[in-house]
Amino acid sequence: MTSKIWPYVTPGIPDDLFERLPGIRLSKREVRLLLLGALRLQPTSVLWDIGAGTGTIPVETGLLCPHGKIIAVEKDEEVANLIRRNCHHFGVQNVEVIEGSAPECLKNLPQLPDRVCIEGGHPIKEILKEVWRYLQPSGRVVATASNLKSLYAISEGLAELQARNIDVVQSAINRLETRGSNQTFAAVSPIFILSGEKI
Amino acid sequence: MTSKIWPYVTPGIPDDLFERLPGIRLSKREVRLLLLGALRLQPTSVLWDIGAGTGTIPVETGLLCPHGKIIAVEKDEEVANLIRRNCHHFGVQNVEVIEGSAPECLKNLPQLPDRVCIEGGHPIKEILKEVWRYLQPSGRVVATASNLKSLYAISEGLAELQARNIDVVQSAINRLETRGSNQTFAAVSPIFILSGEKI
Amino acid sequence: MTSKIWPYVTPGIPDDLFERLPGIRLSKREVRLLLLGALRLQPTSVLWDIGAGTGTIPVETGLLCPHGKIIAVEKDEEVANLIRRNCHHFGVQNVEVIEGSAPECLKNLPQLPDRVCIEGGHPIKEILKEVWRYLQPSGRVVATASNLKSLYAISEGLAELQARNIDVVQSAINRLETRGSNQTFAAVSPIFILSGEKI
Amino acid sequence: MTSKIWPYVTPGIPDDLFERLPGIRLSKREVRLLLLGALRLQPTSVLWDIGAGTGTIPVETGLLCPHGKIIAVEKDEEVANLIRRNCHHFGVQNVEVIEGSAPECLKNLPQLPDRVCIEGGHPIKEILKEVWRYLQPSGRVVATASNLKSLYAISEGLAELQARNIDVVQSAINRLETRGSNQTFAAVSPIFILSGEKI
Repeated sequence: MTSKIWPYVTPGIPDDLFERLPGIRLSKREVRLLLLGALRLQPTSVLWDIGAGTGTIPVETGLLCPHGKIIAVEKDEEVANLIRRNCHHFGVQNVEVIEGSAPECLKNLPQLPDRVCIEGGHPIKEILKEVWRYLQPSGRVVATASNLKSLYAISEGLAELQARNIDVVQSAINRLETRGSNQTFAAVSPIFILSGEKI
Repeated sequence: MTSKIWPYVTPGIPDDLFERLPGIRLSKREVRLLLLGALRLQPTSVLWDIGAGTGTIPVETGLLCPHGKIIAVEKDEEVANLIRRNCHHFGVQNVEVIEGSAPECLKNLPQLPDRVCIEGGHPIKEILKEVWRYLQPSGRVVATASNLKSLYAISEGLAELQARNIDVVQSAINRLETRGSNQTFAAVSPIFILSGEKI
Repeated sequence: MTSKIWPYVTPGIPDDLFERLPGIRLSKREVRLLLLGALRLQPTSVLWDIGAGTGTIPVETGLLCPHGKIIAVEKDEEVANLIRRNCHHFGVQNVEVIEGSAPECLKNLPQLPDRVCIEGGHPIKEILKEVWRYLQPSGRVVATASNLKSLYAISEGLAELQARNIDVVQSAINRLETRGSNQTFAAVSPIFILSGEKI
Repeated sequence: MTSKIWPYVTPGIPDDLFERLPGIRLSKREVRLLLLGALRLQPTSVLWDIGAGTGTIPVETGLLCPHGKIIAVEKDEEVANLIRRNCHHFGVQNVEVIEGSAPECLKNLPQLPDRVCIEGGHPIKEILKEVWRYLQPSGRVVATASNLKSLYAISEGLAELQARNIDVVQSAINRLETRGSNQTFAAVSPIFILSGEKI
């Protein structure tokens, strides 16, 4: 997909190119790169993005996968509109934003997923298990955790679901940031990225 | 480009899918994702990859950028052949491997680059400066450093060249690795990734 | 306590000053500094060190706390002798090494602890809970985890024991190491350090 | 030295036990542990602390080294008083706070140092070189850097001074912090700790 704002075939859009709302989570650029790598999208993948926040994953996957379909689930109307605006801004046309709350709304989603990205939601393990029911064979789930509780819940959930090729990576990226006349190393908050495959 | 081994539109090929030679450097999967993100490849980019090692960057960029052209420079014949085998293995056809030593060989390379990835070489600052002469307008250079000396040299070099949008990121990824019956967090060696643009 | 080998009042003995045995765990210097900080030893503390390995914690605490008492528990006779040799080497005289397997041997230890350091053992949660029974009021437990399973078990255990001031820190230290003529950043394996207090 | 607030023989005072002033730098607990370990204080060491900020190093070293002497240099009067208050608060009596600007003021300091801790100041390399002139034989200098420029300057300075046993460690600590009802991993800003010895 050709975007005037991001005319590149590689992912990794800088955070500040996205419109943001105060308090709304954004997957930081470097974490997003790891997350996209874990998704292993195919040209015609159907991706569910649960708890899509600012919409960085819908935008990046929409651009990487122009013949695929992304269904972004977001419970808050204002945030859903933010995702829509960010997709529009980048010229992304294959993202459908559904206002709803996981896991309840999942049964009504228009297409079954080959890939699921769980960026948030509560209770996370229940969402994971419900998502798994709809996930197509050979499908992949990728989930992020920023705290021990989520890390436990997702890890246990993947084990109970007998997911294959479970992979856990912790990102701990430092950026050299300019603050006034100084360049200081600043840490991007560490995030765990868990993934697993369905047989 | 369709690869039977890696039929995905997202980068991030697992390290163990590449053929390796003892002692030959390989950009680890997570570092590679950050590196590819920093390159910002365009559909028809010409990429020089200096000190290509195992060939992970030629393979990933070859797949991401089927209408682009990758010129991989590697001084050692055996390593050059390793790159060729890895490209062949993944069905990548737009990589040309040149046996030669940077910076001397750069003047003979067949096409001028829009993007340059410097994965190694010595003296690194001289390579960077020579590369810059050939880099096309709006082109980008991305270089990795695993030690203080290279970090200094590349950082100073980019400043002296008055590169724009200089960006420095340090990756410090932990992987949960299975060792016997235990899963232990293992750190991927920290790498600095520096990038800059030509006006 | 005056040691000819380590005549300093600050902890942080370099790893290579300890005698080692192949395959026997050693708490790396930087992790040890964090671990010692979490212990909050008092001048006359009685410390149990469970799974003492090479004996770095007994040596450092013996030196820091000359009027305290350290009881190191180690099931393997050869490793127990290694701890004794390392204590002797550093002139540490207030460490008693008990050959035994936790949690069974704990009831026979000569003194009740104000502080417990759990560096290993299996099942870790059972050891933690048994240790807690003997821990004196206002006592502290510090435990390390290098994998998700131990991290869960210790974290859950501390919560179930209603430990106060639970603290979790993950160390991710990089050392600039000399390899041949190069200095490369090498990551010290990431370790979680958990601590909690008894009322 | 007996402190009612910190009655422990181990360092690692929690950050929030110190009085703070807005905008005044504080060496975070985990970084401080690494820094103290790098200092290798002896029982009667004379320590210069340059750019002492909140005074965490004077307090910790004052407690660890009751027969030693700490000279804290701080150019700002208000900050100097903050250090004095923090020392008083912890019952530390062997710290002398000198209001002055390094490197100019160094020649007037009352005692020559066995140990120097450089926590800040500008230009850092000049301070390092001036400090080295006063450093006693077998003395040690430890300096922290949070940006590339300082890292370069200190590293080059130590090399030019032919310091022995140069050591560079980068701390990248994650803390599990409670934010509302969630516990989130938060990164402590990465700091480089450099040290070297005089022959």
